[in-house]
Amino acid sequence: QDVNDLKLRVEKGSIQMATDDGQFKFGIGGRIFMDAAAYFDDKTDLGSGSEIRDARLLFKATVWKNWDAKINIGFDGGNASLKDVFLQYNINTNSFFRAGHFLEPFGIEQTESSKTIKFMNFSSTVEAFRPGRNLGVSYDRWGKNYYWALGLFGSDVNNTVSNQDEDFGITSRLVVSPFHKENIMHFGLSGTYRSVNSVTVETNNGYGYSSTETTRSVRYRSRAATHIEGRRFIDVTVDNAESQLKFGIEMIAASGPVAFQSELINSKVNVKKDYSSDKDYKAKGWYMQFGFLLKGGNYKYNMKSARLAKPEPGSLELLARVNETDLNDEHAFIRGGKQKDISLGCTWYVNHNVLMKLNFTNVDLDENALNGEENFNMIQTRLQFSF
Amino acid sequence: QDVNDLKLRVEKGSIQMATDDGQFKFGIGGRIFMDAAAYFDDKTDLGSGSEIRDARLLFKATVWKNWDAKINIGFDGGNASLKDVFLQYNINTNSFFRAGHFLEPFGIEQTESSKTIKFMNFSSTVEAFRPGRNLGVSYDRWGKNYYWALGLFGSDVNNTVSNQDEDFGITSRLVVSPFHKENIMHFGLSGTYRSVNSVTVETNNGYGYSSTETTRSVRYRSRAATHIEGRRFIDVTVDNAESQLKFGIEMIAASGPVAFQSELINSKVNVKKDYSSDKDYKAKGWYMQFGFLLKGGNYKYNMKSARLAKPEPGSLELLARVNETDLNDEHAFIRGGKQKDISLGCTWYVNHNVLMKLNFTNVDLDENALNGEENFNMIQTRLQFSF
Amino acid sequence: QDVNDLKLRVEKGSIQMATDDGQFKFGIGGRIFMDAAAYFDDKTDLGSGSEIRDARLLFKATVWKNWDAKINIGFDGGNASLKDVFLQYNINTNSFFRAGHFLEPFGIEQTESSKTIKFMNFSSTVEAFRPGRNLGVSYDRWGKNYYWALGLFGSDVNNTVSNQDEDFGITSRLVVSPFHKENIMHFGLSGTYRSVNSVTVETNNGYGYSSTETTRSVRYRSRAATHIEGRRFIDVTVDNAESQLKFGIEMIAASGPVAFQSELINSKVNVKKDYSSDKDYKAKGWYMQFGFLLKGGNYKYNMKSARLAKPEPGSLELLARVNETDLNDEHAFIRGGKQKDISLGCTWYVNHNVLMKLNFTNVDLDENALNGEENFNMIQTRLQFSF
Repeated sequence: QDVNDLKLRVEKGSIQMATDDGQFKFGIGGRIFMDAAAYFDDKTDLGSGSEIRDARLLFKATVWKNWDAKINIGFDGGNASLKDVFLQYNINTNSFFRAGHFLEPFGIEQTESSKTIKFMNFSSTVEAFRPGRNLGVSYDRWGKNYYWALGLFGSDVNNTVSNQDEDFGITSRLVVSPFHKENIMHFGLSGTYRSVNSVTVETNNGYGYSSTETTRSVRYRSRAATHIEGRRFIDVTVDNAESQLKFGIEMIAASGPVAFQSELINSKVNVKKDYSSDKDYKAKGWYMQFGFLLKGGNYKYNMKSARLAKPEPGSLELLARVNETDLNDEHAFIRGGKQKDISLGCTWYVNHNVLMKLNFTNVDLDENALNGEENFNMIQTRLQFSF
Repeated sequence: QDVNDLKLRVEKGSIQMATDDGQFKFGIGGRIFMDAAAYFDDKTDLGSGSEIRDARLLFKATVWKNWDAKINIGFDGGNASLKDVFLQYNINTNSFFRAGHFLEPFGIEQTESSKTIKFMNFSSTVEAFRPGRNLGVSYDRWGKNYYWALGLFGSDVNNTVSNQDEDFGITSRLVVSPFHKENIMHFGLSGTYRSVNSVTVETNNGYGYSSTETTRSVRYRSRAATHIEGRRFIDVTVDNAESQLKFGIEMIAASGPVAFQSELINSKVNVKKDYSSDKDYKAKGWYMQFGFLLKGGNYKYNMKSARLAKPEPGSLELLARVNETDLNDEHAFIRGGKQKDISLGCTWYVNHNVLMKLNFTNVDLDENALNGEENFNMIQTRLQFSF
Repeated sequence: QDVNDLKLRVEKGSIQMATDDGQFKFGIGGRIFMDAAAYFDDKTDLGSGSEIRDARLLFKATVWKNWDAKINIGFDGGNASLKDVFLQYNINTNSFFRAGHFLEPFGIEQTESSKTIKFMNFSSTVEAFRPGRNLGVSYDRWGKNYYWALGLFGSDVNNTVSNQDEDFGITSRLVVSPFHKENIMHFGLSGTYRSVNSVTVETNNGYGYSSTETTRSVRYRSRAATHIEGRRFIDVTVDNAESQLKFGIEMIAASGPVAFQSELINSKVNVKKDYSSDKDYKAKGWYMQFGFLLKGGNYKYNMKSARLAKPEPGSLELLARVNETDLNDEHAFIRGGKQKDISLGCTWYVNHNVLMKLNFTNVDLDENALNGEENFNMIQTRLQFSF
């Protein structure tokens, strides 16, 4: 049937249009994140200030029952950028194929919407090692007690380099949650391999074209648990890279209004070994965070996305996080710096649409960081709206 | 209640979705401005032509009765830019708090939508001195005969400079309208202070880091009452700025189909006084404009925004404007040029969505302007659509 | 009447809002094109890979019965760009005036949506010579057996050069279709003239300003029937251009499930003749393509847009195309290269929203092409979603 009536509703603060038979659903939405930050005790002079951290327009569609599409465009910083832009075929209620530009299935924070991450910013570990959104395909499935996703990815949005085949990555996440009704327990493993293709440079020496292969670099870097001050205090570039391999372990445990979440990520860059001194580069990081619902009942779990659900409207949440990211590899003589940071936070889930965050963070950097050893503090706040 | 039916309506040519109880309202919209300009008698060779002056997509939302949000993205010139992007809490029907990226409350034209300004372009005075949209918070309230707004603002969208705390501005507008039924009378005052923070530059002299403070500049400049030709004929840069202070007086008077509107703006840049010859820089400008509704009844007034209301669909309006902007400060030996321009206009409000403008302008520039003394004319036209 | 109820429907997979009297209609939509390409036998090392070829947000409106507006913003490559952004006044059901940013009426493929073109990419001939979207006005009308459009255009979106009046173009397309019920026959002619204005450069020699006129260039170039590899293998720049003139012939013939389509384009650049050796530059190209509906019934025709209609959902289409583009002008001693390519394709119109394409192309380049003579193959695929 080519014409059907759509019912227009507001559901949890969001616009929904749907046919009665559920074959067609459409949604439009948007978000605004407004941040402010003040930095204290900074040796490196940090720029306190404010920003529109995120502004987005979103179109969602379900058509012909099984096809989902999402077009989410970001406008932070005054530039347009593609966020989730994908097409999905729902095989059944517990599995789907997806193609497009979306988050690689690796760990908890990397795959989580910035609307629901606990602190204002990713842990610096996840920021340093996250594969982010890339263009690819994935297969996702979940059951009563597990979640599994496998994806094959190219690069981000476009193949920008002409004289080089695009890098590719293969990424998978497996989560098992033995129970998540009264109490919640969740274990997960993620792994990703990504090729680093060499670049072919063609030169004309007068007698004809000759082509040489040039190796490329891999870079890991991370902000100091903030975004308004944009400098990366830990930053490493590994030359002559051939591929990279990352491995993540994740855990969630919750009981009533108390929750624990932790991730550990190991990364290895395989380096072309021209000389005996050339060694593969290894880096790692981890965070542990604790949540306590002062108001709002108990923590709940969502098996479909394999993470804690967003607390109910009206909830008030206290948070603490310890995070360490180590980009120094003494063995390979490559030192990108080491960052330890401790954060305390409070989040008020005002209603389905509005949310306020207050974060305090202490950052401790070692002698290999941007301006050497230093220790500073910051207070940050966010006013968040989404529909 | 988490699910509610929305009624879908077109209201004055715009899409509205609302629950019956008024707790939720959503709107989507857009606009297109198409301009053409022909320049005559131009000594400086001006580029006649056409442009998409503005193209926008807009999402609006009212949720949980008191929370308003607006996401308005502009795409003119082929780049995305944030326009009004804010979250607002309506305290009652006569006051609100607002946070986000929006126009600082300073004067009439600066705070007016480009959909309803009388001529195709701002007066060059307002263009030169307007604070524009910045990221901040404001409190607005209005009554039967007054409007008052107070805002605290950072910089535009992002804190782009890392090694400097963001500038801030405090801005306020107070309007009194003793009567605005049959006849309309409106007086207003606006003031704004804005800091100009110095930049810290860190240098490593081999023995350790030393940091030096560098002062920054303030720039005022203005187009020649047009936009297709983009050059600024008057333009001043004041170095060693420490802060700037602006002061505006505004007046509206209308009776039946005749309206008068005028603004006067004074600006002062406080300069760091290293030498006795260093003096603060002062500039000023004003405009007076007259409107006559050939068709469309009488002018009406809107206390909530403290300005004349948009004429009814079908109206035909004749306009005249005299404008003078003086960026020369003989006392401080800084001369940015002086521009006098006279404009005549005609606007046809075809319906709620479509509007056509025809403007003639004569521009007279003094010897300190871009290419010295000159006098030229232009005819400009706009076809405007919004919903 | 200022308030009217809108009915919300999904029609052929797209959202439609309309009043019962048809005076107001609104639509929102979007699209995602996801491409992948693999290149074989390439002497020039081509970058196989994938990309989000197109991502768009669209608002459409019909207001007060006769006014249509369209705002279509593209986000491919992570930048915002204006696509169709125009206002249209429908004179009657068979003619309209249009103003804004839209495709000049020249030939079949140039005026066709990328949602419905047969292959994944334009023929290289159309890509090389197409005027594309520009800012202008047009008058379109069509009857039972004809279509005619005439447009006057400036440049693309903005007049970017200050010291030069904008170029203008005048373009027209005339199509006659003697019959298009059982069998389809269509002949068309298109022509376009475009000025190439010189640039005025002002210089101050110390005694006053003097201005010199500088001529400009015209450039034609084309990708190798692909987009992921972005290099243009044929590319010509004609200096001292004064104007350009293009002429196109088009033909469509179809019977049942078999269709034939062809275009031939001639282009001439009029060159300023300072020396007797200066000659006008001429280039040309053509393509022929065949379609066969393996499933999906017969080809249909649409007189309003003067082209074949999109096949029905569920259709499976086989395609073949021969294309030659010759940018060499031996007479004028300007050689931009010559490209011959042969493509085979298969398109599955899954439903109104989803479409899949598979294309094979062999490209043959002459000695004047980017890296000289070469011959390579490619396989490309697209997953397309639109609503």
